[in-house]
Amino acid sequence: MSDFSNGAAYVDEKFVPITEAKISILDWGFLHSDATYDVAHVWQGKFFRLDDHIERFLSGIDRLRMSIPYNRGDLRSILVDCVKASGLREAYVEMICTRGRPKPGSRDPRECTNRLFVFAVPFVWIANPEKQKKGLHLIISHIQRIPPESVDPTVKNYHWLDMVMGLFEAYDRGGETVAVVDAQGNLVEGPGFNIFVVNGNKITTPAHGVLEGITRRTVIELSTEYGYEAIQHNLSADKARTADEMFVTSTAGGVIPVTKIDGGKIGSGMPGPVTQKLQEGYWMVHQDPRYTFDIEYD
Amino acid sequence: MSDFSNGAAYVDEKFVPITEAKISILDWGFLHSDATYDVAHVWQGKFFRLDDHIERFLSGIDRLRMSIPYNRGDLRSILVDCVKASGLREAYVEMICTRGRPKPGSRDPRECTNRLFVFAVPFVWIANPEKQKKGLHLIISHIQRIPPESVDPTVKNYHWLDMVMGLFEAYDRGGETVAVVDAQGNLVEGPGFNIFVVNGNKITTPAHGVLEGITRRTVIELSTEYGYEAIQHNLSADKARTADEMFVTSTAGGVIPVTKIDGGKIGSGMPGPVTQKLQEGYWMVHQDPRYTFDIEYD
Repeated sequence: MSDFSNGAAYVDEKFVPITEAKISILDWGFLHSDATYDVAHVWQGKFFRLDDHIERFLSGIDRLRMSIPYNRGDLRSILVDCVKASGLREAYVEMICTRGRPKPGSRDPRECTNRLFVFAVPFVWIANPEKQKKGLHLIISHIQRIPPESVDPTVKNYHWLDMVMGLFEAYDRGGETVAVVDAQGNLVEGPGFNIFVVNGNKITTPAHGVLEGITRRTVIELSTEYGYEAIQHNLSADKARTADEMFVTSTAGGVIPVTKIDGGKIGSGMPGPVTQKLQEGYWMVHQDPRYTFDIEYD
Repeated sequence: MSDFSNGAAYVDEKFVPITEAKISILDWGFLHSDATYDVAHVWQGKFFRLDDHIERFLSGIDRLRMSIPYNRGDLRSILVDCVKASGLREAYVEMICTRGRPKPGSRDPRECTNRLFVFAVPFVWIANPEKQKKGLHLIISHIQRIPPESVDPTVKNYHWLDMVMGLFEAYDRGGETVAVVDAQGNLVEGPGFNIFVVNGNKITTPAHGVLEGITRRTVIELSTEYGYEAIQHNLSADKARTADEMFVTSTAGGVIPVTKIDGGKIGSGMPGPVTQKLQEGYWMVHQDPRYTFDIEYD
C-alpha cells in the first residue's frame, strides 16, 4: 500500500504519494522557471474559492502562451480527487503548468508539450496561529520586487530570488518576514503574501506590481461589506510605519497581523481591532456556500 | 543495462540515465526557482574552462547563502565522471544547486538542505552550424531584463520568463532570437547569451546587468590578443543597428553571428570578418591546454 499520509500528487496523469512526485530535471519549468501556478486550500473538508483559483491559473497559462488539454471541469475534478487521495481535511493544494521538455537540442519553447502537476499537502501557514496572536515582525528590504516591465506579476510565477534574498536580509536584521519594494521605495509584496495597512476607516493595499491575490480580493470584499473604505494605491514606507494597523494576506494562513516594522511598533504593537475583525470574517466565509463546497471523501 | 546514450545525470549521489533524472516537485529549486547553476561544455573529448565554471558556480552558491558538501576537486570529479558515464565526446554539462526541501510546514529557507544535481547531454547549439553561416535575425524586445536591484545577474539563475516571453515576441515579429533591454532601452542580453558589436577596431559588450559569461570572457581575452579594443559599456539600440558587425556568445555554441536586427541588415548582412576571426579563435583555443583537459573515457 502506498502511503499518502504526507500528501498526494497528480503527475503524468496518475495519483502518487507526494514522496514519489517528481519532475524531470530537463523540464523548462525547472531549468527556466518557465511555469505558472496557483495555490488553493481546503479547510474543514471544504475547498475555498477553488473556481477563482482555477480561473487565475488558466489566465496565467494563456498569458505564458501555454496550453493544457484540460478544461475548468477537468481541473476541478483532478484537484478534488488529489485532495481525496490524500485524505487531508486541511490542505494546501497547488496546481502547476510547466513549459515541459524541448526536443533534444532545441531551444524553442513552441516545441514543448506543456505539462500539468497538482499536489495536496497538509495546510501551510505563513505564521502559525500562536505567532498570529502576537503578530509578525516585518523588515522593509532594499531589494526591489521584479518589476512588471520584466515579468507580469499577475501571472503567478516562481521567480522568487528577490523574496528569498529579502528573507535572509530580514533574518539578519532580526525580523521574521520581509516586504520588497518598487523603484520608488514603496512596499509591494512579500514572499507569498499581499500587504495591507489600516488608518481609521481606510484600508490600503498596493495597487501596482503585485499578484492579485484571492485572499487579497476576499479581504477587499469583506472590507467593503463591513463599511471600510478599501483603497488600492502606492504604499510608502512612511505610511506603513505610521499606520494604525498592518496585516498581510495569503492562501497560506488568511489574514496575518504585522505588529512591528524594522524593530518599531505599529500602532499599539498588538494586532488591531480591524485586523482581527477581518481575520474572523475571513474564516467565517469558509462556511459560506458562495465561496466553498464540500469534498466528498471516500 | 541502463541506457546512458541520451545523457547521464548525478542525482542523490548516484549516476543515472538522463531519462531517470528527476527532482522532487517540493524542492524550492523548482517551487521558488531558488537555485543557481552553471553550464560547461565538452568538445572533442575535452572539458573547456571547467575550473572557471566551477569557480562561478561556487560563487553563486555562496551569494545565495547555500552550501554543499563538495569542494572544487569533488565537483570536478563528479562532472568528469558524469560525462564519462554518458560517453559523450561533445556535451553540454550543467551543474545545479537547489535550496532543497523545507521541513513539512516550514517556509524558512535556512532549514533546507541544499542539493547538487549534475547532468551531461549531447551538445546544444543556440544556432546550429548551418544557421551560423547565415547569421541570426535578432529582435530587440520591449521587455526589460530583470534588473540587478531585484536579482543579482552575476548569480546565474533560472529566472527566464523575461527571456521566454521575449522569444515569443521575436517569433511573432519574424525574428529568430531576442535581446532584452534595460530601463533606458539599452541591449542587455538574450536567452543564454551575451551580446557584442564590432565597430572598426572596437568591440563593445554591455557592462551592466549581465551575466559575466565565460564565453564572453574568452572573447574579450581573444579580442585583446588580436589587437582589438574590447569595451564594456552601455549598448544602445541605435549603436547596435549601425554596427559593422554583431555577434552573441554562449557556452551553447561559442561565437554566433547576428546579421539582422528587427528586419534590417547589420553591415553587409553577412557574418563579418572580425566575428569570423573570433569564432575561429574560439574553437582554436579548444586545443589549448591552458583552457582544456582531456577526459579519460573508459
